Amino acid sequence: MLLEQINTPSDIKNLSVDQLNQLAEEIRQFLIENLATTGGHFGSNLGAVELTLALHQTFDSPRDKIIWDVGHQAYVHKILTGRKHLFPTLRKFKGLSGFPKRSESEHDMFDVGHASTSISAAMGYACARDIDGEDNKVIAVIGDGSMTGGMAFEALNHAGHLGTDMLVVLNDNEMSIAPNVGAISNYLTKLRVDPTYSTFKKDIASFLHKFGELGDKTTKVLDRFKDSFKSFLVPGMLFEEFGFTYLGPINGHDLPTLLKYMQRAKNTKGPVLLHVVTQKGKGYAVAADAPDKMHSVSKGFNLAKSDAPKVVKAAPPQYPNMFADTMIELAAQDPDIVAITPAMLPGSGLIKFQEAFPERCYDVGIAEQHAATFAAGMACTGKKPVLAIYSTFLQRAYDQAIHDIAIQNLPVTIAIDRAGLVGNDGETHQGAFDIAFLRCIPNFTVMAPKDENEFRNMLYTAVNHGAPVAVRYPRGAGLGVAIDSEFQTLPIGKSEVIRDGQDVAILALGSMVPVAMRAAEALKENGIDAKVVNMRFVKPLDEELLLDLAKTGTRIVTVEEGSTLGGMGSAVMEFYALNRIYGMEIYPLGLPDLFVEHGDPQQLLDHVGLNVDSLVELVKTMAPRKQKRA
Amino acid sequence: MLLEQINTPSDIKNLSVDQLNQLAEEIRQFLIENLATTGGHFGSNLGAVELTLALHQTFDSPRDKIIWDVGHQAYVHKILTGRKHLFPTLRKFKGLSGFPKRSESEHDMFDVGHASTSISAAMGYACARDIDGEDNKVIAVIGDGSMTGGMAFEALNHAGHLGTDMLVVLNDNEMSIAPNVGAISNYLTKLRVDPTYSTFKKDIASFLHKFGELGDKTTKVLDRFKDSFKSFLVPGMLFEEFGFTYLGPINGHDLPTLLKYMQRAKNTKGPVLLHVVTQKGKGYAVAADAPDKMHSVSKGFNLAKSDAPKVVKAAPPQYPNMFADTMIELAAQDPDIVAITPAMLPGSGLIKFQEAFPERCYDVGIAEQHAATFAAGMACTGKKPVLAIYSTFLQRAYDQAIHDIAIQNLPVTIAIDRAGLVGNDGETHQGAFDIAFLRCIPNFTVMAPKDENEFRNMLYTAVNHGAPVAVRYPRGAGLGVAIDSEFQTLPIGKSEVIRDGQDVAILALGSMVPVAMRAAEALKENGIDAKVVNMRFVKPLDEELLLDLAKTGTRIVTVEEGSTLGGMGSAVMEFYALNRIYGMEIYPLGLPDLFVEHGDPQQLLDHVGLNVDSLVELVKTMAPRKQKRA
Repeated sequence: MLLEQINTPSDIKNLSVDQLNQLAEEIRQFLIENLATTGGHFGSNLGAVELTLALHQTFDSPRDKIIWDVGHQAYVHKILTGRKHLFPTLRKFKGLSGFPKRSESEHDMFDVGHASTSISAAMGYACARDIDGEDNKVIAVIGDGSMTGGMAFEALNHAGHLGTDMLVVLNDNEMSIAPNVGAISNYLTKLRVDPTYSTFKKDIASFLHKFGELGDKTTKVLDRFKDSFKSFLVPGMLFEEFGFTYLGPINGHDLPTLLKYMQRAKNTKGPVLLHVVTQKGKGYAVAADAPDKMHSVSKGFNLAKSDAPKVVKAAPPQYPNMFADTMIELAAQDPDIVAITPAMLPGSGLIKFQEAFPERCYDVGIAEQHAATFAAGMACTGKKPVLAIYSTFLQRAYDQAIHDIAIQNLPVTIAIDRAGLVGNDGETHQGAFDIAFLRCIPNFTVMAPKDENEFRNMLYTAVNHGAPVAVRYPRGAGLGVAIDSEFQTLPIGKSEVIRDGQDVAILALGSMVPVAMRAAEALKENGIDAKVVNMRFVKPLDEELLLDLAKTGTRIVTVEEGSTLGGMGSAVMEFYALNRIYGMEIYPLGLPDLFVEHGDPQQLLDHVGLNVDSLVELVKTMAPRKQKRA
Repeated sequence: MLLEQINTPSDIKNLSVDQLNQLAEEIRQFLIENLATTGGHFGSNLGAVELTLALHQTFDSPRDKIIWDVGHQAYVHKILTGRKHLFPTLRKFKGLSGFPKRSESEHDMFDVGHASTSISAAMGYACARDIDGEDNKVIAVIGDGSMTGGMAFEALNHAGHLGTDMLVVLNDNEMSIAPNVGAISNYLTKLRVDPTYSTFKKDIASFLHKFGELGDKTTKVLDRFKDSFKSFLVPGMLFEEFGFTYLGPINGHDLPTLLKYMQRAKNTKGPVLLHVVTQKGKGYAVAADAPDKMHSVSKGFNLAKSDAPKVVKAAPPQYPNMFADTMIELAAQDPDIVAITPAMLPGSGLIKFQEAFPERCYDVGIAEQHAATFAAGMACTGKKPVLAIYSTFLQRAYDQAIHDIAIQNLPVTIAIDRAGLVGNDGETHQGAFDIAFLRCIPNFTVMAPKDENEFRNMLYTAVNHGAPVAVRYPRGAGLGVAIDSEFQTLPIGKSEVIRDGQDVAILALGSMVPVAMRAAEALKENGIDAKVVNMRFVKPLDEELLLDLAKTGTRIVTVEEGSTLGGMGSAVMEFYALNRIYGMEIYPLGLPDLFVEHGDPQQLLDHVGLNVDSLVELVKTMAPRKQKRA
């Protein structure tokens, strides 16, 4: 076993191509065996084995800076940089992160999780190097999906302008999480599939000669041939227009070619783009055949190559399924409903909607900013767009939510999936801030359902509200509750008292409602009679409820799966303060002021004290002293 | 006067080219005369006169949808759509907006103010049209500066992919607010200046013939010619790669050409990009010669063409000047200081820094996302980047502030100019949300100076803090205070009591500190003795101060020029609640939960009740009842 001897990148420096190929196979086996147990990002890492080996043999990490975009393809990099013994802990609490992390290794140059940041970060490293007169190399490794994100273009534009020495490796597998969307993707496909490209160099002279014979004819002839001609002539034109030297496309599993081109890229001045074509899931038949299903796997799939991984099905419906079904029902009733998502078609559940209403479903690629403003434009025409997006990715469209949706008070519904802690993806993916960053925006209504039935009614209410609405809901399954036979319109800004009690009021939001109910049961056994309110709305708040609580001076615990700072608890306190109602005793329980690492979601909730036990202990400290206020 | 008869777009439908040219001259004169009195965006509108006339003669607004990017070039559009009589009120309180506004006219399709949104919005209109089976046209008019923003690329990518019928008019004046930056800009320049482009059609055949004679020679010959050859062959290649039909470049002041090409664009299926070259400030010598200075003008410039507009100089230094001077001093002391701005080189003051330290100053173009992550990359290397950005534009880099700066706890200083109400630009430019959206982010320190001397010390403190810091400061001038001879390090999270008083405490932030001081003087005359605290820090808060106030049960008014929801006042209430200190009487005064329109900044502050009088009245209602708390 070669892999046993590999602990640092220097251990692969002198390996022959044959040895590297052997090592590649061993690494694949290592990944398949480990991920079968731990789960993790599968296809992208199997696809990047040779690429990573070639990078580490050609460049000198950490002196040379290798920066991974998104980062879920960096497992091989982790194996080569002394972390293979940690793979049994992958994505587990206190274990190896699923993404590069500077605190984990000197070979990890930039923490990541979201797409399209690598070229910007690499530009930072490269410009700093130039200021200091150093000569190390800087390499960004970016997938074709991440290339559709606007900030990748902003960075290409800047790099091309400055002519900075840097290498962008475009790892093109035609697939980010789902098949990529957009003109860029078509363009890359063109480069990839046309056999003429590979023989470009030797054919170009004779082609030009033949073409030259048309010289005297009219330009009409040229127009007819223009498209194929220009594509033939200059593969990578798009990148060359940005000022990059384009190399490729090359086969990303062919080590001699990879090594040759990387060396050439290393010796080329200015910004270089090396286009490498890889196959997601390479070396594992199931993953290669169904790469979107195998993008990320749960633990415990069967190693037999003919088996798809076992998906552990929870009995209650998953929120994405419920979202898709509800959208289909809404769209069937209302021709103005349209769905938009920035590259979250499978994750959001919308892929099912797309089958039902292909002409009213838009996957715009990794392009959150565009997605939000595109929705705003649609809303101007009377459509009722629903933007499906995860909480952390909505951060990318924050200005658009303010500037394009809220200022114009447009009827856009933002369906915020993965709001709250998401678990194994860690810091970059926890949906902690959406309540705080949305509720300060005028015109926005912000809601969160306690279960999947309420979720359906909230979507129904939102699309018919005629103004901006955000509905936030957690990752994972609902509660398995009964579903109303007809949609109900929820009164805006009205909460639901789901348990009466005199000693203390627990004002709970969304995923914390069932937690609050269980806490109330436990408190009952301790002689404390807690009222539990399903708040439903962060904005507008249920002012009548709050005024009633003030009349009795009831102590309040607010609980939400979102940042305490700026959260619903603060909204409640603001309401009282702005209405000069003083003396209320309120404790705002939410996510603490730190980035929550990766781990099992329940483990993380326990860790940060957002569970039944913590809530019980907290309420106990609030409840005993009873005291009426004027 | 033709202009007198023009009240709707239909009034220009039958005008001849000669009449349109006459009208163009009359409109220029109208603009020059009006803006001399009111101020406003000058050069961009003078440059867009013929373009706007051609658009409205070719297309049928409002049936056809004309969507303006940024919108500060839409004055001519406003003149042609029945609003010329409102120009004396331009950008004044309750007067004509400086930007398109749907509430103002059925011809305004999308509210705007920030860059790069138009293609996304147009895509929304176009896709909605296609769903409904309508056949109206959709036109986005976007400047070359806005084209560098990532979301414009996201939208181009999507449009090219779908092949949607739409027209993008690229209004290319080589100048957004300041000269544009980046490879895109170089590319457009190439298209623009090379005389071969205009004769492209007739020369191409003979050129190819000549080139074909090289057929037998090696590809080396081709490589030598490749750059010029490919540019020659396919102007607009970049856009064609995105799937657009490219037309142009054409002279944007030549009406017959404009009309001909617009007609051609109108008749072309699929996405079309029409490249129009215009001159900013066309028709007014001073504006055309110094277009960045004349981008936006104050009221009261002299009509004599040899005079630059009078700039009304306030005696105390403007914040941008102070920022530039401080940055120069800091950079002189510390080789690790670098400055980064997304297209705010003149506005931020950094243009002066660039002269002093060109190799440590990066204007990345309109590319906020890239700017922030580029800063993060730099910070990884030990540099101390300072990102200069306006409050509302930081909204564009929100995810990057969280994901790339804060999670990695990197020493990036964000210098947030225009924090608070900015005045005449209105809703889209008011810096209302930065406190709320930043203080929920772990690891961020958020400060605001009371005057320009403290601002200098805050910058000094920030760049040496070793972690993310945001310093927010208002538009306009400082107070004219004395400047410390040496920089002082401010203790993190410590406030400054600047007036003692027993009856009530006013906790003021930044621009509200002098307001609070004046209010305290007025209150003194009413027998109320107010303590005034310059908070300096929103995060971390001065907990010692807050605990002291709790000991005496002092009533508190917090005051800040930022959204009340989620603002500093909420932070204070959170602190007390999380520490189980109840019964404090706090009133959080800040910007109300609405978008504040355009007008004179002081007028707007009066309007929203953030002035000395409002504060005095508020404090009076808080102070009288004196009551100690345990």
